[in-house]
Amino acid sequence: MKHTLIQNGYIITMNPNKDVYAKADILIEDDHIKEIGHVDRSQISPDADILDAAGKIVMPGLVNTHVHLSQQLARGLADDVDLLTWLRERIWPYESEMTLEDSYISSLACCTELIRSGVTCFAEAGGQEVDGMGRAVTEAGLRGILCRSTMDQGEGLPTKWQESTDTSLDKQIALYNKWHNQAEGRIRYWFGIRTMFNASDELMVRTKELADKYHVGIHMHVAEIEEEIRFAKASRGASTVEHLANLGILDRNLLAVHTVWLTDREIDFFKLYDVKVSHNPGAAMKVVLGFARIPEMLQKGIPVSIGTDGAPSNNRMDMMDEMYLTSLIHKGRTLDPKVVPAEQVMEMATMNGAKSLLWDDEIGSLEVNKKADLIILDPHAIGSIPLHDPVANVVYGMHASNVTYSMCNGKWLMKEKQLMTIDEEKVLYDARKHGDEIVKRAGITLPHRMKPCE
Amino acid sequence: MKHTLIQNGYIITMNPNKDVYAKADILIEDDHIKEIGHVDRSQISPDADILDAAGKIVMPGLVNTHVHLSQQLARGLADDVDLLTWLRERIWPYESEMTLEDSYISSLACCTELIRSGVTCFAEAGGQEVDGMGRAVTEAGLRGILCRSTMDQGEGLPTKWQESTDTSLDKQIALYNKWHNQAEGRIRYWFGIRTMFNASDELMVRTKELADKYHVGIHMHVAEIEEEIRFAKASRGASTVEHLANLGILDRNLLAVHTVWLTDREIDFFKLYDVKVSHNPGAAMKVVLGFARIPEMLQKGIPVSIGTDGAPSNNRMDMMDEMYLTSLIHKGRTLDPKVVPAEQVMEMATMNGAKSLLWDDEIGSLEVNKKADLIILDPHAIGSIPLHDPVANVVYGMHASNVTYSMCNGKWLMKEKQLMTIDEEKVLYDARKHGDEIVKRAGITLPHRMKPCE
Repeated sequence: MKHTLIQNGYIITMNPNKDVYAKADILIEDDHIKEIGHVDRSQISPDADILDAAGKIVMPGLVNTHVHLSQQLARGLADDVDLLTWLRERIWPYESEMTLEDSYISSLACCTELIRSGVTCFAEAGGQEVDGMGRAVTEAGLRGILCRSTMDQGEGLPTKWQESTDTSLDKQIALYNKWHNQAEGRIRYWFGIRTMFNASDELMVRTKELADKYHVGIHMHVAEIEEEIRFAKASRGASTVEHLANLGILDRNLLAVHTVWLTDREIDFFKLYDVKVSHNPGAAMKVVLGFARIPEMLQKGIPVSIGTDGAPSNNRMDMMDEMYLTSLIHKGRTLDPKVVPAEQVMEMATMNGAKSLLWDDEIGSLEVNKKADLIILDPHAIGSIPLHDPVANVVYGMHASNVTYSMCNGKWLMKEKQLMTIDEEKVLYDARKHGDEIVKRAGITLPHRMKPCE
Repeated sequence: MKHTLIQNGYIITMNPNKDVYAKADILIEDDHIKEIGHVDRSQISPDADILDAAGKIVMPGLVNTHVHLSQQLARGLADDVDLLTWLRERIWPYESEMTLEDSYISSLACCTELIRSGVTCFAEAGGQEVDGMGRAVTEAGLRGILCRSTMDQGEGLPTKWQESTDTSLDKQIALYNKWHNQAEGRIRYWFGIRTMFNASDELMVRTKELADKYHVGIHMHVAEIEEEIRFAKASRGASTVEHLANLGILDRNLLAVHTVWLTDREIDFFKLYDVKVSHNPGAAMKVVLGFARIPEMLQKGIPVSIGTDGAPSNNRMDMMDEMYLTSLIHKGRTLDPKVVPAEQVMEMATMNGAKSLLWDDEIGSLEVNKKADLIILDPHAIGSIPLHDPVANVVYGMHASNVTYSMCNGKWLMKEKQLMTIDEEKVLYDARKHGDEIVKRAGITLPHRMKPCE
C-alpha cells in the first residue's frame, strides 16, 4: 500500500457539488483517491510521499477527447493550405510512410506535450500503427483510448490503406483483444470510423454492433465540413447525422468529433440519443471547419468535451490553450461575453471529457474512490498574477508552463516540470530525426514563405 | 564602442526583401545593427559579447501596439461579465483607486510579461498615472510609447477623472515635455483619446493639432462596439469614422484600435488617409467587440498591427498567443484556411507594428543601422518540434516559453530566460500585494464560481 499526500493546496474538485477548498489535502492510496479535505496524518503510512501544494491549484487532470498521436511529427507540414492540399499532398503521403517505430516516436512526442499541458487522459482519433501508440502510452503512464483509422472506401486513398470491410473490422477486433484494459487498465480500445467519406454503410453498422458487443465506444469525425453534408445527401439521401440516426448509430457510445454543420433538429437528436461531442476550437479555426454551435449544445445539456485534434491541424497539442480558445471563440461568435464562462470550460475539459469517453465512473473529478488523475498548477508566474479569480485564471491566464505536477493512476508523470516516465531529450532528438526522414521518404517539399539567403 | 555578436542563428530579417538566413550572424554595435550575414570576426572588438544561436531563430522583437500597463493588476477582476459591469463595477473602480506607486508596480509587471513573450516595443493605450509607467519602462529597458487616458465627457465617470478639455490637454503637454524621447530615446509620448463616448469634438480637434505640432501620433479606441456607432450617429450625426473624417482627424498619425464596426467605405477612408490599425483578437473575442475585418484591410494595403489590450480584457498579455489568434480567428470567420498566413502575421507583429507607431525608420526589422531590438526563440521544446516550417512554427506552434533572449536598443533584457533588468521575484510579490490592496480599497467583490468548502 503506497500513500501520497498532497497538502495545503487550493483544490478544485469538479465533483457534482463543484466543491472548492482554499487550503486542503488529498490523500492518494495506490491508484485512487482515499480522502479529500483535512486528512488525519495518523492514518498515513510512514513512508508516504508528501508534497506541499501551498499556493498551488490542484485539479483533475485534463481530458483531451480528440488527438492524433501519429500526426505529431507532421506539425508544420500543412499550414495555410486548402483542405485537399492538406490531405492529399501533405498528411496522407506523410502518414502512409510511417513505420511502426515512427508511430511509437510520434506518440511518445505527443504524450510528452500532453503531459506538459496538463492532460492525463486522451482519446486517439485513429492512426495506422496502433501497436506503436500502445507501446508509447504504456511507457508514458498516461490514460488513453486507442483507435485504428478505419476506411473501406474513399477517393484518393493511398494504395496501402485500401482494404475490405471485413479486413478493417478483423484488424480492429485483434487490436481490441491486444490492447483493451492493458497497462494497469490505463489503456482502452475503441472502434473507429474516419468519416462519412471513407465508410460504407456496412462498415458503420457492423462497427456499431461490435462496439455494443464489446461495451466500448465509437470515435468518428461527424459533420466536419459542409462538403461532407453535401456528400452524405448525394450518396445516402440524408445529412451525416440523419443518416447515422437512420443506421441506428446515434447512441450514448458515439463520440462525434467537430460537429460543425448541425441543424437544430440534429442537435436535438444528439441530446435525445445521448451522443457525446468533442469540440476542437483550434483546429476548427485553423483548418477551417467553422464555428460549431457549442453554447447551444451545452444549453441543451449535451456534455460537450474538448480536444486538440492533431499537430498539423492546430498546431498546439495544448489543452490549456484549447480551454482559452473554447471560451473566446464562442463569446466572439455570439457577441455575448457571458457565454461559456470559465467554470463551464473547466467542466468541459474534465468531467465532460470523462463522460465523453464513458470513463466518468473513474475519472474527471477529484472524488474519493476515483482514480488519482490530477494536475498541480503553479500560479506564481508573470502571466498568472494576481490571482483574483483562480478558476478564471486557469482558463484565461495560465499556460502549459504553469503545469508543474501531473499524476495519472496514482503515479507521478511530472514533478516540478521534470518528466518522470519519459526521457524528454531523447524524444526531442528522435522526433526531429524521424520527422525529417518521413518527409524525405514521402517526397514532401514546402514552398518558401520568405527569401532564402546564403 | 560595445560589440555583441549573435552567431549561427536562423535569421528572419523582415526586411523589404523578406530575407531569411539558415545560418548567419548579426553584429550589434552599441544600440544598432552593424552587419547581418557572415561577419568578419577581425573587425569585432576583443571584449565583444558573443552568443551562439545555432539551432535558434533570431527575429525582430515583437511590437504590441495596444496595451494597458495600468490594468495589469486587474487580471481576473472582470471575466465573463457584460461590458457595463466590466467598466463601471470592476475596471473604473479599480483604476480610479490606483496610486502612482500602484501604476509603477502594474507597469513593471506588465513589462515583465511583455519581455517574456517577445515584445521589445509597445504602445500604451492611456492610463492615469503616466509617471509610474515611465519609471517602470525606463527601468525595464523596453521601448514604448506612453499615453494618458484622456476624457472630457461621458456618463458614469468616476468623479476624480472629471476634468475640462483644457486641463486634459495641458496635462498631456506637460507629460510630453517630461517623457518624450527620454530613456536613451526608448520612450516616446503620444496624445490619447479614449473613445467617442468620452471625447468632445473640441478635445478631438485640439488633440489632432497638438499631435501634428509635436510630430507624434494619437492613440484612440475606434469603432469598438456597435453601441459606439449608434452613439456617434445620435450625438454627432455620423458614424465614428465618418465623424473623425469630418473633423480632419483621419490621418497617418492616427492609431485606430479595434476598428470592428467599419463599413467598406470606412475601410477605404483608412487606406486613403493612411490611418494605422491595431487589431486585438484576444480581447475582441473575450470582451466581445466582435471580429474586425482584418483580411479585407490587409488586402487593401492597410498596415494592420497587433495588440494584446489589457489584462482584464484578454487576459494574456502575450504576443506569441496573439499572433496565433490573429491567424486563427480570420481563417475561422472567412472559412478560408489560406487567409492571414504565418508570414503575414509575422509582418503584422513586427514591421506593421513599427509603421503603426511611426517608428519604422528605426525598428520593426533586422536591417543595418536600425536599432538592435531583437528576440531569440529556441525551438528545442516539445511544443515546437519538428521544425519543418520555421516561420509557421513561430506563429502556430511556439509559446512565450520558447522566447529565450530579448534585446532592446542593443541591451539584453533577457538571457536564457533570466531577466536582466527586472527583479522578477519582487515584481511577482509586489504585484499580488498591490493588486489585492487596490481591490480591497475599491470594494470590489467577485461572485463565487463554485462552492467554497472549509
